[in-house]
Amino acid sequence: MDALISRLTAALGPAAVLTEPHDIAPYGEDWRGLYRNTPRAVLRPADTAGVAAAVALCAAAGVAIVPQGGNTSMVAGGIPSAPDAEIVLSLARLNRLRSVDRAGLTLVVEAGMTLRAAQLAAEAAGALLPLSISSEGSAQIGGVIATNAGGNNTLRFGNARDLVLGLEVVLPDGAIWHGLRALRKDNTGYALRQLFAGSEGTLGIITAAVLKLSPAPRERATCLVGLASVAAVLDLFARFRDEDDAALYAFEYISGTAMEINLRHMPDGRLPLGQSAAHYALIELATTRRNAALRTTIEAVLGDALEAGLIEDAAIALSEAQRLAFWALREHVSESQKREGASIKNDVSVPVASVPALLDRAATMLAKTYPDARMAAFGHIGDGNIHLNVITTADPEALMADVNAIVADLGGSFSAEHGVGLVKRAAFGQWRDETERGVMRRIKLALDPGGGMGPGKVF
Amino acid sequence: MDALISRLTAALGPAAVLTEPHDIAPYGEDWRGLYRNTPRAVLRPADTAGVAAAVALCAAAGVAIVPQGGNTSMVAGGIPSAPDAEIVLSLARLNRLRSVDRAGLTLVVEAGMTLRAAQLAAEAAGALLPLSISSEGSAQIGGVIATNAGGNNTLRFGNARDLVLGLEVVLPDGAIWHGLRALRKDNTGYALRQLFAGSEGTLGIITAAVLKLSPAPRERATCLVGLASVAAVLDLFARFRDEDDAALYAFEYISGTAMEINLRHMPDGRLPLGQSAAHYALIELATTRRNAALRTTIEAVLGDALEAGLIEDAAIALSEAQRLAFWALREHVSESQKREGASIKNDVSVPVASVPALLDRAATMLAKTYPDARMAAFGHIGDGNIHLNVITTADPEALMADVNAIVADLGGSFSAEHGVGLVKRAAFGQWRDETERGVMRRIKLALDPGGGMGPGKVF
Repeated sequence: MDALISRLTAALGPAAVLTEPHDIAPYGEDWRGLYRNTPRAVLRPADTAGVAAAVALCAAAGVAIVPQGGNTSMVAGGIPSAPDAEIVLSLARLNRLRSVDRAGLTLVVEAGMTLRAAQLAAEAAGALLPLSISSEGSAQIGGVIATNAGGNNTLRFGNARDLVLGLEVVLPDGAIWHGLRALRKDNTGYALRQLFAGSEGTLGIITAAVLKLSPAPRERATCLVGLASVAAVLDLFARFRDEDDAALYAFEYISGTAMEINLRHMPDGRLPLGQSAAHYALIELATTRRNAALRTTIEAVLGDALEAGLIEDAAIALSEAQRLAFWALREHVSESQKREGASIKNDVSVPVASVPALLDRAATMLAKTYPDARMAAFGHIGDGNIHLNVITTADPEALMADVNAIVADLGGSFSAEHGVGLVKRAAFGQWRDETERGVMRRIKLALDPGGGMGPGKVF
Repeated sequence: MDALISRLTAALGPAAVLTEPHDIAPYGEDWRGLYRNTPRAVLRPADTAGVAAAVALCAAAGVAIVPQGGNTSMVAGGIPSAPDAEIVLSLARLNRLRSVDRAGLTLVVEAGMTLRAAQLAAEAAGALLPLSISSEGSAQIGGVIATNAGGNNTLRFGNARDLVLGLEVVLPDGAIWHGLRALRKDNTGYALRQLFAGSEGTLGIITAAVLKLSPAPRERATCLVGLASVAAVLDLFARFRDEDDAALYAFEYISGTAMEINLRHMPDGRLPLGQSAAHYALIELATTRRNAALRTTIEAVLGDALEAGLIEDAAIALSEAQRLAFWALREHVSESQKREGASIKNDVSVPVASVPALLDRAATMLAKTYPDARMAAFGHIGDGNIHLNVITTADPEALMADVNAIVADLGGSFSAEHGVGLVKRAAFGQWRDETERGVMRRIKLALDPGGGMGPGKVF
């Protein structure tokens, strides 16, 4: 190890190689506080050549690497798999904007740029990078792509993978794949960029990406609605979708319990409705159209829904400040739950029409088996993706297994947008059959025969 | 071989195993008439179990298979790689609609269903399968996905790969991957469905797919515009895109030469403009919105463009019959070129903003090097995808290489939507560096170590 550190220091410069315990400890802690897997060392190369050199030296020495971006993974994806098990390679210094093409609506950014900085770079060019997650201020593009992050606008624009036109990747042997093509269409061989996206650092290290932008919307309209049942929430979703699916940028769900906890812990939390409800929907329409009068669309859909007895109460944001206040209610849910006490996070998905069955059956199961549990569900209901979080002191493994049994029965997934990482490896082994895992394992072995890239993740 | 045929006949039934020369010959001819690679036999299993049994038997006997759908590949992707080289496995009998979920907007279809039949199944459910290609009447879903087909609506909805939520695939050893999940979000391991999509039958055989639908549009508006330059076409594209990108379902280009040839060969071909132009754009807006008045949007954008001296002439379709007539002009371009005489097809893409440079430089090169050549370009200009076809008796290899040199210089691709197949293997070897081809080759070897799936394709 000492010889490797010397070689890395010679290649990257002393400032890029951290070995002091107090320097490297933070890189081993995931932000949820689930693990403290201090790395063997931390590398902070300044550019792609530096990443390639570092990877080649570690591969030659047989020392494994885990790439780390903003370290905001919900499943401990960015830290070593065990204490002293791997070297962390931080992408934080590769944070340059390489280019913007407004006519072609593409953005070329390095892996270490935060998602927020990339959004602002798009905005400065009069365009929209339509990917938004709660951690966007610290999450970095490389990690966002490597975990195929989801968030609030996937309903309209897809996950991170769907926004990637090209990638630059350092492969497990240190070779660089120059796949930074800015093409909307390119049918030449296998879907490598889609494969590296979502591979959670196990197949290579993303160092830069070409992202697909959209024209900036000229208008947004946002409303918060109170409803009596999940079925009513889904019915309202279908009405908005069938009315103007292209303008439906977000359709988020917050259960009454999640909202109640939220309001208790938010400094300025205030429900903009006359009364509390059992369920809430936060809906945002947006468009590039001029004079689109999106508020009129919202009023029309909500008016019909009110008449049909579908909704109980609703508020439309009348200013940008109100719009941001509505969104703050949604964005603060996780933080409020953290303050409320021990909670178990289930990031699950089912076919959209099965969401009511999921929540009903989970509530019944919890009431029966976990008397202290409070189900504080929320999430991206338009995608069938529910964060079925439970406030309880019960055993996480047992409770997650009980939730997952319902999800499996409904044809769902145990990880809708957070990935597998360290936290869900056991679930991955249970959920996916030997054929599917076999195909993935053969791909892993083919691209990383030495096993030096993110060992212990996914599999 | 005889023993294998006996075993296949026992497994699939005699009607599913063709060996007579006059029965099997058509399966060896690609529709462009470039090859006559008669297969060793043709298998027509009736269901997924039959496909799996056939694949397992062939793998055990060391006989390679090429899967075939509608056999509409532009690059001879569905036929054997050489005469008597492989067995063709036709998916034509797997043509069932398995299910439709209107609430979840998903469609589960088998590989042998034609794209047109799948579109109609979506339509019958009040939804839209937003994928449209000229060959949709005979192209089958399995092949459409395996080649990641593009077409007229990729601008708004992406290629075939982007519409696939789940797949059922028979792997090279005959095992079945049950990946038919109908989930909008599922972040659990590698992007297998994206990998099989576009793999051109070299990694496994797609037997069924879950496709993502959209709500059916309530309104469409279509116009044909004459312009003096390609730069003007792109400028007009940017205006429509920035005005209402969500409604811009198609923005197609037809060069003056392509249109002139087209009108000469179409039985009822008629230019709906007062005068001919050097360049044409066929533009379609669509939306689910009520009273969207899309024609007013078109009039406004075209009015501004006329005032800015950008366009020469324009016609808006005033009836469904007119709309179809406009589209017929676009759809008939290939057929007309076939009738005009020998033509060389270049399905290339460049970053959108580089399309004028591409066409200018190609015209200059052709005038200089190929005096008899007529460039009859058309295509999906909004995606930067131009079918840079050339009517000429010149040597195809030399001319394609000269076009490709320009495309490469502009950071483009030698195959935007047609894939590699047999026709573009040489280009694939020249264009993609050893690192990229190495990654793909390792994936191929990992999933198909015996090389029994579509040998000679892509690589």
